[in-house]
Amino acid sequence: MKQSHLFTKTRKDAPKDEVSENAQLLIRGGYIHKEMAGVYDLLPLGLRVFKKIENIIREEMNALGGQEVSFSVLQNPELWKATDRWDDKKIDNWFKTELKSGGELGLSFTHEEPITKAVAMQVSSYRDLPRYVYHFQSKFRNELRTKSGIMRGREFVMKDLYSFCRSEEELDAFYKEVGIAYENIFRRVGLGDITYLTFASGGVFSKFSHEFQTVSTAGEDTIYIDTEKRIAVNDEVMTEEVLEELSLDRNKLVEAKSIEVGNIFKLGTKYADALGLKYKDKDGKDAEVHMGSYGIGVGRLLGTVVEVLCDEKGIVWPASIAPFDVHLVELSQGDEKIRGLADSLYEELQAVGVEVLYDERDTRAGEKFADSDLLGMPYRIVVGRQSTEDSFEIVRRVDGLKKTVSKRALLTQNYGF
Amino acid sequence: MKQSHLFTKTRKDAPKDEVSENAQLLIRGGYIHKEMAGVYDLLPLGLRVFKKIENIIREEMNALGGQEVSFSVLQNPELWKATDRWDDKKIDNWFKTELKSGGELGLSFTHEEPITKAVAMQVSSYRDLPRYVYHFQSKFRNELRTKSGIMRGREFVMKDLYSFCRSEEELDAFYKEVGIAYENIFRRVGLGDITYLTFASGGVFSKFSHEFQTVSTAGEDTIYIDTEKRIAVNDEVMTEEVLEELSLDRNKLVEAKSIEVGNIFKLGTKYADALGLKYKDKDGKDAEVHMGSYGIGVGRLLGTVVEVLCDEKGIVWPASIAPFDVHLVELSQGDEKIRGLADSLYEELQAVGVEVLYDERDTRAGEKFADSDLLGMPYRIVVGRQSTEDSFEIVRRVDGLKKTVSKRALLTQNYGF
Repeated sequence: MKQSHLFTKTRKDAPKDEVSENAQLLIRGGYIHKEMAGVYDLLPLGLRVFKKIENIIREEMNALGGQEVSFSVLQNPELWKATDRWDDKKIDNWFKTELKSGGELGLSFTHEEPITKAVAMQVSSYRDLPRYVYHFQSKFRNELRTKSGIMRGREFVMKDLYSFCRSEEELDAFYKEVGIAYENIFRRVGLGDITYLTFASGGVFSKFSHEFQTVSTAGEDTIYIDTEKRIAVNDEVMTEEVLEELSLDRNKLVEAKSIEVGNIFKLGTKYADALGLKYKDKDGKDAEVHMGSYGIGVGRLLGTVVEVLCDEKGIVWPASIAPFDVHLVELSQGDEKIRGLADSLYEELQAVGVEVLYDERDTRAGEKFADSDLLGMPYRIVVGRQSTEDSFEIVRRVDGLKKTVSKRALLTQNYGF
Repeated sequence: MKQSHLFTKTRKDAPKDEVSENAQLLIRGGYIHKEMAGVYDLLPLGLRVFKKIENIIREEMNALGGQEVSFSVLQNPELWKATDRWDDKKIDNWFKTELKSGGELGLSFTHEEPITKAVAMQVSSYRDLPRYVYHFQSKFRNELRTKSGIMRGREFVMKDLYSFCRSEEELDAFYKEVGIAYENIFRRVGLGDITYLTFASGGVFSKFSHEFQTVSTAGEDTIYIDTEKRIAVNDEVMTEEVLEELSLDRNKLVEAKSIEVGNIFKLGTKYADALGLKYKDKDGKDAEVHMGSYGIGVGRLLGTVVEVLCDEKGIVWPASIAPFDVHLVELSQGDEKIRGLADSLYEELQAVGVEVLYDERDTRAGEKFADSDLLGMPYRIVVGRQSTEDSFEIVRRVDGLKKTVSKRALLTQNYGF
């Protein structure tokens, strides 16, 4: 894409009311637009990153046997009354609205109830289970305060997966598989090294739930990490008894602030029972369905990547989720030969499927470089006076390393770093 | 996909409160789930169709130079007060909600205001225009009654495109281009023959707006079609004066009920003026931005295809948007050789990229055929006693025509109908 065609521009300053670093950088880069406190829109560059993250998650969900659906935002109170989650005293961050034809509706803050109800209408026999259903859909949380940018919004898209199993054992086995899929996701978006499977508070059906926590000073949580075992314990369940149970040595644990980028938990039979989801076993007897719930906030994950991988110059995207593979910057300053060289390279790169953001704007070199650093593509190709038909400078964003490479190297994305 | 793995099942009957044929068939086929009146969820098969339609629209929008974004559901009243569209007396189908921290918010019933405001923050010079911005996002309409299934819901996803031009001429030219893109879309989803560019009521800035109306007895609109010129006039603007202006002969017009599957209209400078969007022209003077708005309801388009192309046996998908290319139905009845033949064919078809729904359920042939007709894939491959390694029966859904074809024909999707 030619940068001059993009309707967004970079900005020197973020809005004054924006305190989080992730949102500041994303707004300055033209990735997102702040609609109001806790509500952000995705602009073209932001949407490209969002979709790449979404697709990584989708691939991992499909590999688990997940079936993708799309459930509504508007929520029928009847389902939530059945599980005793409608009352504002029970759930304190509902957004509710009213039908002109009479009656209240809710806005989805999660989707256990409607998805369980829909599955109940399709499942009757042990042959119909297990099933795994997921979607990407907006969630709405009526938060009193918002200060974490796109990491904790009033409106955000979450991938939520629900598992429906015939027994605790079947649920336990799938729960472990999801844990591995989640580790794959966080590794694939570039957070693998600093993200830990974390023991957190459970519920009636399970002593622990599990979170995936990414170490960051901007985090709202506190965890204690065993770096050898690569697991952590959330502050909220950190007791001598728990440490003993998990065979962890308090002296070996490292305290850190962290961002919860995913969570998985066992729901037991609570929702299925309340919403009439059961099945006939092999003997024709009614049996209970054991559920699990598995969430990842897509926007939060995007914000976390920005927050923890950025540097003083701007965003640093991992190649897997960068909006473009390379940022092609021409420094022709009116020299038509250089411009021609850059134009040709742009066409050739696109022809072989390299995703290119092409800065062909009539702007000073310094400004182009500053914008390029702020936008954070993994590689920058510079076409200027030193360039020839088969010799171009390429700079790696993460560490600023430079190389002079051939056109073939650029076309095959084989830069030799 | 193996049909036994799908968590949805077909149903003999639709819910009693569902009066529309499109929703009845889609619910019976397990394509959608009715959450409540006017609110439907997409189940796995429905989501596959939805995404194919979405992608056709996306391709056409990108070909126009459209830049995709994703704007929020929650709406800031300030923007809507600026254009005098916040008051319930002005817009009678708002859903509104309240912030716990104080103040009202709206749920998006359209997105002119937020997108115009965001563009205003990015555009300053004549060099920044024209720009075309679109997204796919949920809209919420607080309708008193709902009776058209997924063709008129309280919650639905719309593609809305907004154009920002420097002059009326620039807007007029783009408006025509969008008209052609829309005709491409309706042709590509299988409705080209029965969809008409229709003159409808305009506004302050333009005498007419234009709708795309698909002929259907289930339609809520009445249009008068000139079948030679392939244009129509909406009942609401059907006067002698208009006929004269459009050089139409009343005696040649055919009256029909129709479904509005798309609309395009010129907004003039109203929204841009109200929200502070202007630009500096070549002489450095402030100039007004001329806007256009272009909508297609994705779910409504899906429902319309079902409504107008179905037959007494069920849904009939055009190949371009069918959830699967073929429905492979095995009639082994326990015969392992036949089952092996079908299993191999399933693997081979998938290996060459044919999308296959494989009915390998242990079910009677009659039930399999009835389900297959209801689900409506464009082609059904039957593997039974008559099949050999290189000879299979294929049935075309739209007219029931049968052929016996080679495996090569199946693998190349070259059936010779």
